[in-house]
Amino acid sequence: MIAQHYKDMLGGKSVIREISEWSTARGAEIGYDNVFDYSLGNPSVPCPAEFTESCRRLLDSCDPVTLHGYSPTLTLPAVRAAVAKSLNRRFGMDYTADHIFMTSGAAGALAHALRCVAVPGQNILTFAPYFPEYKPYVEGAGLTLRVVPPRTEDFQIDFDAMEALLDADTAAVLINTPNNPSGAVYSARTLTELADRLKAAGKRFGHRIFLISDEPYREILFGGQSFAYPAKFYDDTLTCYSFSKSLSVPGERIGYLAACPRCEEASLIVPMCGQISRGIGHNCPSSMIQLAAADCLDVTSDLQVYETNMELIWDELKRLGFTVVKPDGTFYIFPKALEEDANAFCRKAMAYDLALVPGDTFGCPGYFRMAYCVGTEKVRRSFAALERFVSREYGIEV
Amino acid sequence: MIAQHYKDMLGGKSVIREISEWSTARGAEIGYDNVFDYSLGNPSVPCPAEFTESCRRLLDSCDPVTLHGYSPTLTLPAVRAAVAKSLNRRFGMDYTADHIFMTSGAAGALAHALRCVAVPGQNILTFAPYFPEYKPYVEGAGLTLRVVPPRTEDFQIDFDAMEALLDADTAAVLINTPNNPSGAVYSARTLTELADRLKAAGKRFGHRIFLISDEPYREILFGGQSFAYPAKFYDDTLTCYSFSKSLSVPGERIGYLAACPRCEEASLIVPMCGQISRGIGHNCPSSMIQLAAADCLDVTSDLQVYETNMELIWDELKRLGFTVVKPDGTFYIFPKALEEDANAFCRKAMAYDLALVPGDTFGCPGYFRMAYCVGTEKVRRSFAALERFVSREYGIEV
Repeated sequence: MIAQHYKDMLGGKSVIREISEWSTARGAEIGYDNVFDYSLGNPSVPCPAEFTESCRRLLDSCDPVTLHGYSPTLTLPAVRAAVAKSLNRRFGMDYTADHIFMTSGAAGALAHALRCVAVPGQNILTFAPYFPEYKPYVEGAGLTLRVVPPRTEDFQIDFDAMEALLDADTAAVLINTPNNPSGAVYSARTLTELADRLKAAGKRFGHRIFLISDEPYREILFGGQSFAYPAKFYDDTLTCYSFSKSLSVPGERIGYLAACPRCEEASLIVPMCGQISRGIGHNCPSSMIQLAAADCLDVTSDLQVYETNMELIWDELKRLGFTVVKPDGTFYIFPKALEEDANAFCRKAMAYDLALVPGDTFGCPGYFRMAYCVGTEKVRRSFAALERFVSREYGIEV
Repeated sequence: MIAQHYKDMLGGKSVIREISEWSTARGAEIGYDNVFDYSLGNPSVPCPAEFTESCRRLLDSCDPVTLHGYSPTLTLPAVRAAVAKSLNRRFGMDYTADHIFMTSGAAGALAHALRCVAVPGQNILTFAPYFPEYKPYVEGAGLTLRVVPPRTEDFQIDFDAMEALLDADTAAVLINTPNNPSGAVYSARTLTELADRLKAAGKRFGHRIFLISDEPYREILFGGQSFAYPAKFYDDTLTCYSFSKSLSVPGERIGYLAACPRCEEASLIVPMCGQISRGIGHNCPSSMIQLAAADCLDVTSDLQVYETNMELIWDELKRLGFTVVKPDGTFYIFPKALEEDANAFCRKAMAYDLALVPGDTFGCPGYFRMAYCVGTEKVRRSFAALERFVSREYGIEV
């Protein structure tokens, strides 16, 4: 018989996807150019030329039997070494190839990380607002997701709220910095306190608590700031990365898991990933894509558009009187809705051809997400609609 | 704390991989050309030119944002439609795109198929000799693998032995035709009886038993025979396919799951796969590789070398007096060892620079596997070593 559990899941449709589908349908009516679609987090800029060139070079110059051959169980050694070297140079770490496991995007990395450090029945803490896929990722590993309420003044961590949810069954804390949907980047101060608190809790509960750091937006940082790399602050860190956003290749499913070399089991994590892979059918990302990503460790797409868009939207939202935390990175912004029910707010926005996503889906009711991975020209055009919307629906005049 | 279960798995090394590593090490001593490495099932012929050309064309002519963009949750619609059409034409089926789910190889397809039709605690039946990765695949889904003893006279199915292992907790029967390691292809007669037996058992136990058919070697058939397509014989069939062998692209991790349209839940299987993907971190194979595979549905690598090698090895083994079933497909042959302990037999063969894999690892002690995906010239050269081996160790003179 078919598995009832997965059959039951079919009812639950993603709110983000529903709104995105509405945008597409509305676009068919009035022209997609006239729909201000802030729903989906899809990169809007092309991959760097280096990625395309690397694929071409591999196809032209490699023996196809080798190029398209099986990766070793633990993924391609040269690629793992190149990733380690790049992380060491950028973040002052001391990874070797043995600490790197290439995965099918951050989703693949998280699937392995969760199974590495937690066993069914344990719980994983994350912080609202959070990426909604964390729930199926965590539950798919037989674990429970516990969500720490948001600290809405800056979207850093409310540590007392975190402590209230930590218990002896907490296997790991899952962070996402820069954060989808808030655009917040955890500061060195936040990460220092997080490390202190986790160390203390680990002692209290008699076992270390792992930090799983999901960092697909790490390369989209605003204002020229440098990134506070979580594994620098806490030894028991598994870093999960995807090239989806930095190289604009989300469909190629390429990323990695990096085990902090100072973690006690650092040498075991990657071999364990190899075992986990067998059970979940992962068995390495595409060989060619692994090699192409390794060729592009020092480049990104032209990500400037996201900062340009953010500044424009930020100014406009402030001008219209929104309460909003200025993003430090990503291509998201997460303002407070103009009424308590963000679902109602976003539904009303549709009448103005604005596709906004209510914060409930991110565990943060009363807020909404705008994904500004769209053309800057469209961002500018959307402001008239936004102004009409808040003026007619909420009587805001500026 | 790290997950003890996966840590404990680290001890268990694959016998195939150990022998392959010995080959590589021995090759470093005496030159790899002089090691007769029949250990690994790695395609030895290049991918068809169409695959490379398709990748080039995609890179040259597609908008990179679209080409490398996210696949929809259920994978690329045009690719699914193309696969359905190709299967319909070749096997007289009536799939639509809705029945096809693209996966990262057959491993990805099996990971989804198992979770679709079985829940933790149930069992899956397979038939010795069987691909050893079935055990971690099945156990990784929380299921138990039960192995039906081999019918060594022809490596078809011993139905009475199967019935003895079927019970109310059997969710599915997992077949592999053409079979790794025996090279046997299930006949229409075998599949007809299998269908009859499964239908009767389903009635007896009050629930249908699914057939999961793993077919990565489907395109490597000998003697110009046509393939008895299992889903033609039994409605509740999930077909798992990989392009690894037909296109010689095992590292690109591309395959699919096809749900038989006559299965009662045919329309639910693929959406359920979408849900399963979220929990195991699969989330679609590479977009570019999906598109390239769809361009190559009607071509294969030049697979003739495998049949040439099989005929040569078959003749030689018969000449030397081995008991061996002639393969109908794959690039494997599975003769009876010349002593009861196939491990001892294969260990002794190493002294003659022959890398053979003992059948124990396939659930069939006393036999050994030769993977003849190697150059024909090397096959010919290996015969002197083989003859020396059986003559000196087992006194066989011909």
